Formats: sequence, structure tokens, C-alpha cells
Amino acid sequence: MSVLENPTNIFEEASNHKPKKTLQTWLIGRPLATADAPHQTIGKLVGLAVFSSDAMSSVAYGPQEMMLILAVAGVSALHLALPLVMGIVLLLVILTFSYEQTIHAYPGGGGAYIVARDNLGELPSQVAGSALLTDYILTVAVSISSGVAQLVSAFPMLYPYRVVLAVAMIMMIMIINLRGVKESGITFAIPTYFFLVMMFLTMIIGFVQYFSGTLGTVAAPPQLEVDVLQPISLFLILRAFANGTSSITGVEAISNGVTAFKEPHSKNAGQTLIWMSGILGTLLLAITFLSIKVGAIPSESETVISQLIRTIYNGRGLLYILNISATTVILIMAANTAFADFPRLSALQARDGFLPRQLTFRGSRLVYSGGIVLLAIIASLLVISFKASVTSLIPLYAIGVFLSFTLSQTGMARRWWKSGHLAHDAEVVERGSVLRFDKGWVHKMIINGFGALCTAVVAVIFAVTKFKDGAWVIIILIPVLVTIFFQINHHYTHLAEQLSLENLPRKKIFKRNRVIMPISGVHNGTLAGLHFASTLSDDITVVHISIDPEETAKVKAKWERWGEGYRLVVLDSPYRLFLEPLLEYIDKISAILGPNEIITLVVPQFIPKHWWTRFLHMRTADSLRQVLLQRKNIVITEVPYQID
Amino acid sequence: MSVLENPTNIFEEASNHKPKKTLQTWLIGRPLATADAPHQTIGKLVGLAVFSSDAMSSVAYGPQEMMLILAVAGVSALHLALPLVMGIVLLLVILTFSYEQTIHAYPGGGGAYIVARDNLGELPSQVAGSALLTDYILTVAVSISSGVAQLVSAFPMLYPYRVVLAVAMIMMIMIINLRGVKESGITFAIPTYFFLVMMFLTMIIGFVQYFSGTLGTVAAPPQLEVDVLQPISLFLILRAFANGTSSITGVEAISNGVTAFKEPHSKNAGQTLIWMSGILGTLLLAITFLSIKVGAIPSESETVISQLIRTIYNGRGLLYILNISATTVILIMAANTAFADFPRLSALQARDGFLPRQLTFRGSRLVYSGGIVLLAIIASLLVISFKASVTSLIPLYAIGVFLSFTLSQTGMARRWWKSGHLAHDAEVVERGSVLRFDKGWVHKMIINGFGALCTAVVAVIFAVTKFKDGAWVIIILIPVLVTIFFQINHHYTHLAEQLSLENLPRKKIFKRNRVIMPISGVHNGTLAGLHFASTLSDDITVVHISIDPEETAKVKAKWERWGEGYRLVVLDSPYRLFLEPLLEYIDKISAILGPNEIITLVVPQFIPKHWWTRFLHMRTADSLRQVLLQRKNIVITEVPYQID
Repeated sequence: MSVLENPTNIFEEASNHKPKKTLQTWLIGRPLATADAPHQTIGKLVGLAVFSSDAMSSVAYGPQEMMLILAVAGVSALHLALPLVMGIVLLLVILTFSYEQTIHAYPGGGGAYIVARDNLGELPSQVAGSALLTDYILTVAVSISSGVAQLVSAFPMLYPYRVVLAVAMIMMIMIINLRGVKESGITFAIPTYFFLVMMFLTMIIGFVQYFSGTLGTVAAPPQLEVDVLQPISLFLILRAFANGTSSITGVEAISNGVTAFKEPHSKNAGQTLIWMSGILGTLLLAITFLSIKVGAIPSESETVISQLIRTIYNGRGLLYILNISATTVILIMAANTAFADFPRLSALQARDGFLPRQLTFRGSRLVYSGGIVLLAIIASLLVISFKASVTSLIPLYAIGVFLSFTLSQTGMARRWWKSGHLAHDAEVVERGSVLRFDKGWVHKMIINGFGALCTAVVAVIFAVTKFKDGAWVIIILIPVLVTIFFQINHHYTHLAEQLSLENLPRKKIFKRNRVIMPISGVHNGTLAGLHFASTLSDDITVVHISIDPEETAKVKAKWERWGEGYRLVVLDSPYRLFLEPLLEYIDKISAILGPNEIITLVVPQFIPKHWWTRFLHMRTADSLRQVLLQRKNIVITEVPYQID
Repeated sequence: MSVLENPTNIFEEASNHKPKKTLQTWLIGRPLATADAPHQTIGKLVGLAVFSSDAMSSVAYGPQEMMLILAVAGVSALHLALPLVMGIVLLLVILTFSYEQTIHAYPGGGGAYIVARDNLGELPSQVAGSALLTDYILTVAVSISSGVAQLVSAFPMLYPYRVVLAVAMIMMIMIINLRGVKESGITFAIPTYFFLVMMFLTMIIGFVQYFSGTLGTVAAPPQLEVDVLQPISLFLILRAFANGTSSITGVEAISNGVTAFKEPHSKNAGQTLIWMSGILGTLLLAITFLSIKVGAIPSESETVISQLIRTIYNGRGLLYILNISATTVILIMAANTAFADFPRLSALQARDGFLPRQLTFRGSRLVYSGGIVLLAIIASLLVISFKASVTSLIPLYAIGVFLSFTLSQTGMARRWWKSGHLAHDAEVVERGSVLRFDKGWVHKMIINGFGALCTAVVAVIFAVTKFKDGAWVIIILIPVLVTIFFQINHHYTHLAEQLSLENLPRKKIFKRNRVIMPISGVHNGTLAGLHFASTLSDDITVVHISIDPEETAKVKAKWERWGEGYRLVVLDSPYRLFLEPLLEYIDKISAILGPNEIITLVVPQFIPKHWWTRFLHMRTADSLRQVLLQRKNIVITEVPYQID
């Protein structure tokens, strides 16, 4: 029995085909087989670290960026930060209730994208998708820039290397994420918890000092960087509020990543969300309150949090250093939240046919490598073009998140409304998600609806007050992205229709194969091509484009001797063009082609041993191939002739 | 009679195939047919303009750069410039005699490269070739930079745009040259003669003033930019001399371009050379003499020639402006000399197989477009990296030219020696050039030999005195280039041997064609591929790489229905790799291939309508093609399926 009659046999030993050890293996670890996938989930404690570093770390810049706006109206205006932060924490509570409902309704992972897709339709879902993708990129850029800023305030000699440092850090996080989510979870858990412990310790000491009346004021605070004081206006307050909302942009992360949690996914993810919001709200209130009490001044030269901590610890001692280091590290790692979610979301959109399909392929470590690398590249470019400045990046940030919050909660509200109109105990499967009757639907609809209203208001405030500072970039970018996504979708849909076997394909029976073989000279490679061509058909035409008459005479003479009687057609090219006369000839033959005939272009190719030698040849075969692939009823055959 | 039986018939109307009107046509003119070639020659007056602008224009920086070195020893040392320039003019006279002999001995064009190749061998000729190519590039960079420097001294507001201006000018000259030599000759004749008229007018007025005692001194001369005065040393004098020799680097241009002249080539070219040297020598002596007499101070802030001219015209009047403008224009156009010669020389070296063959192809306007574009790119990069500074570029300049001068004249001396040892009236054709007995051979050998000796000394002086200033770059670069040239030559020679039909090719008779067709899905494109494959062989194996079990199940089911009974092999890929399992499979089949068997890989390719959509697909077919072209006995056939 020939091997070919049962070709799978010869393959048994190779069925566990594994790639070789390479630089890649060394960087990101041994390849994981597809079957290993289900084991790569995480518990609540690790999940909190992986998905909440974004939200947690924003306490380091959120209150400060809010105070920076208020400071324009003078030091006394800084007290307004406290009511504003209370409003933000209220918003956080509303969002938490809202998203907790989402996590349970979507145990398979329900970010804004999926919720909008299932309940609102394609356009809203793509708007949500593009808004989220944009904001994940900005999360990386802002967090890394802020982390580097902290590092630089501690070690001013690093100042000239800010951009290089930031890019290096992005690359580091990229590699950690390419290794896979479980390992990166452990890598990130220790610093996250170290940050939380340090931060709560400092806050507790701060409050003890406050209540015992021993809380000091900032020694040698930075100068207020305001030229002309402005009066307190509603616009100013809203701008400050908008800046402050950057503190709660990480809240949606968990709902996107529900499947990464251990079973039961929803319960674990929901509890983690509540923990996270509790911690975040507490820290935001505590930091803002104490910062105002110690008289911290928002400034470019020293962060508010640094002023607060050194006042509590009465100088830059060990505890100050530990706390600032922890802040720096968590800021840098906050980018990891985006690295966990961006690739998942882009894979989801790619699976729906709105992003390139390549993003759905999982790399050797079972993560969506394409999305991880893409995120790292775009974020690096952003950091480079904004020179790693948080203040320049902030106006671009958050608007996309609030847009997606709004869409997500609107979708949820609509979902509850639909569920309320089902029969009791009914179950409807709609676009893959199960919709059940829920007797609490009115209550739930109100929660999500109210959330949607609040976040919509914030999104509008943000767009208006930050428009000139940079929000316009995002307001233009999102429709552009959505248009591109729909273009991509149109391509895939159209392609699928064209390729569909339902449009009953006619069986083509080719009776005559007309072989055309272009040659520039007569040599061993040409003859190899000719020998192959003769297995295809008896109708072989060899074509030579004559550019140099001397060369042509040589070709003719050699063909006499070696051409084995096959027809040689010489096409004159007075303008020394190669492709054009050949294409014209092929088109003429093509025009007279019978219904059951096909043209096969046989291209003899000599393949040199060294890659660099390709620059020493004209590579007309490549251009020919590119052009002819567009033509119908032409098949291109390359007959390689290897040079040793 | 079928058209295919006499396929040239259908081609008659198309034999004058001409490319369409495009941006290219608009920029560089209508295409010229190969048959037009002989008409594109130039007379002596135009030839002088085309080939001598390099040499002529160097009077604007040669004396100045010489004085710049002498100034280190104080103002009084500047007088040494006159004896030094006399030495340089003497060298010019020797070179002119020497090259006049070359032009007559090589009517087909005899630059250093050809002379060295014919009389000294491959290594010296490649050394000469690489030295000349390097110096042509530097000619462009130095002349353009100097021209821009003049422009900038007249209009200081252009200072920040020096580099941009220089690059724009290089591009302009490139386009003029891509149009073809005749048109560029006319373009360049007017400014060259305008420059000569202005320069001689100024010199005559200057000498009249000098002899009538009315020659003034420079009003408000620039400050001497020397911190510590150095004593006059031999080294200093030699350095000054070396800088001064940059004035005579254009002399060889005509001997390279003899064929561009009208018939009789040699006579016209020779006379043009003598005219050029006469004019150049006169101007060099006059400018240096008068510059010293008016007390011009070499400086970065104002050129010596500008000081001289404004002293003669007693201020910056119309004549001053005209003369400086003419100098600026000729400097910029001096680069044109290099644009006339670099492409010719590189085509020559390419024809000998030491540079990529592409350089021998003439573009639509019958010029060596590849060389012209290459020169423009490298010179632009040089201008960008040296920030268009003449002083930084000068130390790299001239050493290569003197090296090639030496090789050329050594070659000529050797040639005369050989001709003297022929029988009377004998004619030997050696490497394409005709060698005749010449009774004046001793005399001629002495002229060329003496020339070689002088230029060798200059080359050594240059290498030693300018080594640390930048000459080391060229001293390293030339051997590197020569090594690359020989590598390229080795590739072409080896390839020709491998392809040679003299190594009697075995006729391969393929008895069995094993067709392998990889598929990712079952659709219209796949079936088109299958229908074509069935015309090739009955032995067809369709291979599917299984990455996603669900997808594989679908493929299997569809193949059941649409696969027309052909064998489907599914290869598992647990690590989600596509290429590796397929290659392994092909290699296994390859290993058991019979002597008269061949593998044909049929790759169905769907071809989307829009180019940008290629980014939406994995393009594994491309990678597969690249890898398999390296394997023996495998033919790759692409069956395109166009999507409308």
C-alpha cells in the first residue's frame, strides 16, 4: 500500500508537532497546546490585581488633575475638590450596581461591546468597541507616562530618558502579557497588594493625625502655577469634574474579562468588582480629603500624592520612599489592565468581522498575541508623540470610556425591558445570550437606565469642557474608526457571499491548457521550466521580449539548438519595457480563449542561495505575478531552479 | 489557421507599444525608442558646459579652502597660497596632457575604470571604480552644499532651510538628468557661459585696477577665526595643498564621457578638455592672486570670492549680485557633471558584473535612470547627515579622485610600454580595445608615468594630512566597496556557470505529478483550484491544517458534499501553527518521491478587488511560496479566484 493512499499514517509521530526553541520561546515561555486553554483562569485575589490596577492607580493622578483645574481660581477653590470627588464616588457606586448586573447577565463576558451588540445593534456596538479600544490605548499611555513621571520626580537625572523609559516599560508589559494571563496575574498581584497595604497604612496614619490634631501642612509646597486668577464658574467646576472622572475609568475592565475568572465566573467577577469599587472609592475620598487638609498644591514639579505622603510621614523617609515606589510600580502596571482587555475585545470584534481576522488567532502561549503587540505599538507611538506628558494626554482620555458606559447601560436597560415583556419562566436565546423573564426587571431597568443617564451627562460634559484641549481628536477618531470597521465588515461579508458554495459553482472542465512561458535567456532554468510545461500541455508558446537585438539573436540561436522544437515568439519592445508587451500578448490570447480553455503561465525562476542576491536581479517575475493574479482564467506556475 | 500557430501576426499593430501618459511622462518627457539613441550626442560648446561645471565651479571654494588652512599660521602665511596654486596648476597641465592621450587611445570613453581594467586588471579597476563612484557622490554633496552656502550668505533668512534647499536642488538636477543628456546640456550651457563671462569680466577689471594701482582692499573683512597661531610647517603647507587640489577634481569627467560627444568623439572631447583646463587654470591663478592682493580673509561668514568681487566692484552693486548669483548657480549645477558620469560608470561596472545588472537598463528617456536615482538618493543622505556643510565634507573629497587618477595613468603608461613592444604596424585587440604600435611610445609613457607619480604623491599627501578630518572614512570605504563588488561578481559568475547549457542538462521526463492542495476552507475558490488541479494529475491530495476542531468538522462535512471524491488529509496542529505541519508533510512526500516524479503544489488564491483588503487576510500562501521555492522538485501553481 502506497503511503499516499493512507497519508495520515506517516504523520503519526509528528502529530505533536512543536516549534523549536527560539528567542521567542526564551522570552515568552514554551508553547501551550490548544487543549491547555481551560486551565488558564484566575481566582478573585489574582483577578483583583490583574483587572483593577488601572482603576486603583488612577488615585495617583485623578484628584490631582481635578485640583489642577480648580487651582486656576486660587488656593481657596481647592476645597471644591471634596464635593466633586463625592459626586465622582456616587457615580462609581451607580456604575458598580449597573455593572454587577451586567456581569451576571453576561457570564461569558459582557463588556460594553457585547451588551451594545446584543441589545442595541451593530452601529452602537461598533461605536462602543472603537471607544473602548481607543481608551485602552490611552490607559497604557497615561498610566505609563504617569508612572515614569513619579520615577523621574524621585530620580531627576532620569528626566532626559522619560520617553525611552516609558517605551521600554510598555515593551516589558507586552512580553509579560505574551507569556499568558496566569503568569502575568502572579507577577502583578504582589505589587498591587503592596500598593494597597502602603496606601491604607498612610491613610490610616493620616486620619489618626487629623483627628488627634497632629496633621501638619505641606512643608515648602510648590508654587501655584497660575498667572491670572479666574473666577469660579460652572464651566470651571465641570472641567474639574471631567478631569476627576479619569479616576473611575477602570471600572468596566472586569465585566469584559469575566471568563478569565475561575468558575463560577460571574459570581467571582461580580464580587471582585464590588471589592474593587469599595477600595477605589475609599481611597479617592481619603486622598482628596487629606490633600486638602495638608494644603497640597497641584503642580507639575511635585505630585499632590507625594506632598501628602511626605507631610504625613514628616519628610522623605523610608515609608515615603516605599509608598511612592509602590505608586510608581502600580501606575506602570495599570497598563496591564488594558493589556488584558484590549486583545480580548479586538479578538471579539475580529470574530464578528469588524477587525482583521488575524486578531482572533491565539499565539504560542494561548493569548491573542496580535492584539497585545498592536496595543504596545500604538501606545508607544502615542507616548513618543506626546513626549510622555500626562497633562497633554489627559484630555483625550475618559471620553471614550463614558461613551461606552452609556451604550452599555442603555443596552442593559433595554434588555431588562425586553425580559419584562417575556412570559413567566420563558427563556429566549437571542444572538447567543440567554434572555430569561426576571420579575425584578423594573428595578433593574431603573438602575441601568439611571447609570446610562449619569454617564451620558458626564460624556457630554467631558466633550464640551475638554473639546479644545484634545477631546476633539477622539470625537473625530471614533466615527473614523467606526467607518473603517464597517468597511472591513463589508469586505468579509461580501467575500463570504462570493465564496459561498450556495451560489452553486459551475463545474469547469478544462479541455485545453494553453501554456505561455516568458524567458529572458536560454539556460538550465529555462529548460527545467520547459520540461515541466511539457507535462501540462502540448500547446506551449515560449515568449521572449526583445530589448537588446544582440541579446535576442543569441536567444534565437540557442533556442534553435536547445528548444526541442517548441515555438518561440519574439516580441519587440522599442521602449525597453518588459511587462507591457507581454501583458498585451497575454490579453490578446485571453480574448480568443474558448470556454473550456485556460492559460497557464509557466515562469521559470532561478532561486539563488543567498537572500541578498535578490537585489541583483530584476524580479520581473514578481511584478508579472502580481498583475496576472488579477486576470481571469490565468493560472500562474512557478518552476524554481535552485542554484547551489 | 489559428492565431496561435502564427502568433506574431496579432502583434503587428502593437509593435510600437508605447507607455501611457503618466506623471512620469509629464516630469521627464515622452519615452524615447531605443533606435533614437545615436542622436543624443552633444557638441563641444554644450559638452564644455555639461562636463566642466564641476571643475570650473571649484574655483569658488578651492582657493578659499587652501587659504583656510594657511590662515592658521596668520595673515602673512596667506601669501603662500600663490606658489601653492601654481603647483596645482602645474599638476593640472600634467593631468591634461595625460588625459588628452587617454581620450585618443580610448575613443569609446576611457575613464580610470576602463583604462585600469584593460591595462592593470580586475582589482585595480574595481578600486578605481569604487573611488570614482564615491567621489561623484561627494561632488554632488560638496557642490550643492557650497551653492546653498552662497545663496544663504546672500539671503540669511534661508539659513534654517539649508538642508531642505540642498535636497530639493539635488532632486531638481535628478529630474533634469532623467529627461536625458541633450536637454540637460542646453539647460546647463546658458548658466555655465554666463558664469564664465561674469568671472572673466571681473578678473579683467581686477587686473586693470591692479596694474593701474587702483585695486582696493577688502572693506570690513571678516575676523580671522584662529585662536592660537601655529608656526608654518611642512605639514601645514601640505594640508593646504591637499585642500587646494579639490579645485582640479573635475578633470577626468570628459574622458569618461567621450561617447557623449558628436563624431569624431575623441577629437571633440580632447579639444574640450584642453579648453576646460586652460580656463580653469587661468581662473585659479587669477582668483588666488587677486584675493591675496585685496587682503581677503578666509572665513565661514563670507566666502573669499565674495570679498574679492565686492572689492573689485567697490560694494554690493548689480555686478556683484550678478557674479555671485552666477557662482551660486554654477556650483549647484556642478553636481550635474557627476550626474552625467556616475550613471555611465555604474552601468559599465554593472555590465562587467560588479554592480547590480539593473544599472545597465536605460529608462524611457534612454538614460541610465537607476544610476541617476541612486546618486540622488545617496548624495541627499550625505547632505542631510553632514547638514550641508562644505567644511565637513571637504576632507572626504578628492582622495578618491587622486587614487583613480594614479591608477588610470599607471594603466596608460603600461599600455604605451606594451604598444612599444609590438611589431611595427601591428594591431592587437586586447579586451575590446585596439592596441597599435606607436613610435612615440617612450615619450607618451613618460608623460603618463610622470602624471601617475605626481597624482600618487598627492593622494598620499591627502590621506596623511586629512586622515583624522575624515579621509579615514574613504580609506575604509573603498576596500569595503571593492569587496562588495567582487562578491556581486562572484554571484553573477557562479550563476552563469550553474545556468550554462554547456553543463549538459539532463532532460527530465516527469511521469507522475503528485498534486498537493492546501485548503483552509471549502468554497468557490477551493473548487476552482480543484478543477484546475484535476487537469494536472489524478494524484491529488487536499490537505487541511486543523487549528480549530469546529472549523475542521465543517471543512470535513463540506468536503463530503463538494470534494468530488478527492482525498482530504487533515493534519492536527495543537500549537496552532499553519506552515510547519504542512511543510513537514510535504517534506515526507518529497522524501519518498520517485526519480521521475514531481510535486505540484496547487494554491487556490482568492484575489480581492481592493488592495487594502490584503491586510485583512493571513497571506499564508505568500509565506508558503517563499519557503517552497527553496525546495527541489516542487512546482508552485497559484490558481487565482477573483472576487468582484
